[in-house]
Amino acid sequence: MDDSKSQVIAQSRICWLINKTTEDWIQLAISNPMEILLDHAHCERKAAGVALQLMFRYVSEPGLSEVLSPLAREELEHFERVLTILNSRGKKLQKLPPPPYGAILSKNICKDEPLRMLDSFLVAGLIEARSHERMKLLSIHSPDIELRNLYADLLKSEARHFGIYWKLADERFDQNILTSRLKELAKVESDALLEMHHEPRMHS
Amino acid sequence: MDDSKSQVIAQSRICWLINKTTEDWIQLAISNPMEILLDHAHCERKAAGVALQLMFRYVSEPGLSEVLSPLAREELEHFERVLTILNSRGKKLQKLPPPPYGAILSKNICKDEPLRMLDSFLVAGLIEARSHERMKLLSIHSPDIELRNLYADLLKSEARHFGIYWKLADERFDQNILTSRLKELAKVESDALLEMHHEPRMHS
Repeated sequence: MDDSKSQVIAQSRICWLINKTTEDWIQLAISNPMEILLDHAHCERKAAGVALQLMFRYVSEPGLSEVLSPLAREELEHFERVLTILNSRGKKLQKLPPPPYGAILSKNICKDEPLRMLDSFLVAGLIEARSHERMKLLSIHSPDIELRNLYADLLKSEARHFGIYWKLADERFDQNILTSRLKELAKVESDALLEMHHEPRMHS
Repeated sequence: MDDSKSQVIAQSRICWLINKTTEDWIQLAISNPMEILLDHAHCERKAAGVALQLMFRYVSEPGLSEVLSPLAREELEHFERVLTILNSRGKKLQKLPPPPYGAILSKNICKDEPLRMLDSFLVAGLIEARSHERMKLLSIHSPDIELRNLYADLLKSEARHFGIYWKLADERFDQNILTSRLKELAKVESDALLEMHHEPRMHS
């Protein structure tokens, strides 16, 4: 997919996020910049893991590895960039208990193929869309200029990622099934954030 | 680690390979270039998977992600390069039953920490060392110039990978334990290749 098309699709991603992120989350996040940064490192690492996992699970699916391998590399590049800033501020990568968001979404992925593939693409896309929305907020509201610039830079390529997963789904599935399944999963995604997780996370 | 040090260590890797690859393997490999190329794509993909898996398993280990994330990206770059050549020759990525080599090595990794970590580094390093040895042979003996050039190019960075895993082990483990465990695992590695697998693979 050319970048312009991905970006057009990604621009419209906000329609898929049923609830907008609240002021409360923004306040929680900008009051805990290092914890959010650490969590963001984990998000990039896990996003690379998801791309690789899909590439491995559907290894014979035509045209999939060609898209997911560069995506995984880009997520790892972002991970390394965040890690460098963490290290430069004396903070090491360490485990951080995740919010329930990812587990709720995973639980709603259909267990049987071919819907498992469709749901996996849509869930990965929804997470990317939410990350993009929140990174944009951080790029505006973070009091720390280095972090504002980091999030603004990462945004530029993150904007494409939702479009990539959308296109992977769109090329392989009937439009009606896709739209109806996205509607259901988008509801799950937004509901998972209705009650804000008590600890500062990208997906609290 | 700077590249020169990695390369010095990698140069000495041949000591770790107890048996040299036979003429029979070279003949089997160059008589089946496309099957070897497809298998090589899977090897690069799996090598990225191993780096990511170790990064995930030991997420809080200081200095590990900083090394393994760029390594995983490099393996994925190689994977994409091989995939491009496969596609340009009308061959798609598809499953290929692996030889027993990887499973034999995995089975010999100690189940308990901290030896599990040491063994994981050494096994990953041994596989890299064997891949490097065989890619060098392919870069010399392949009748196909595009494939000779491909293997010669990939070799340049593959040469560092054994050194990277060696250094990860060397920084964390007692020299005596490391040397004795490497000796045992190198024996397992070479024995796994004594009886050549009947199908053409990088690790037949």
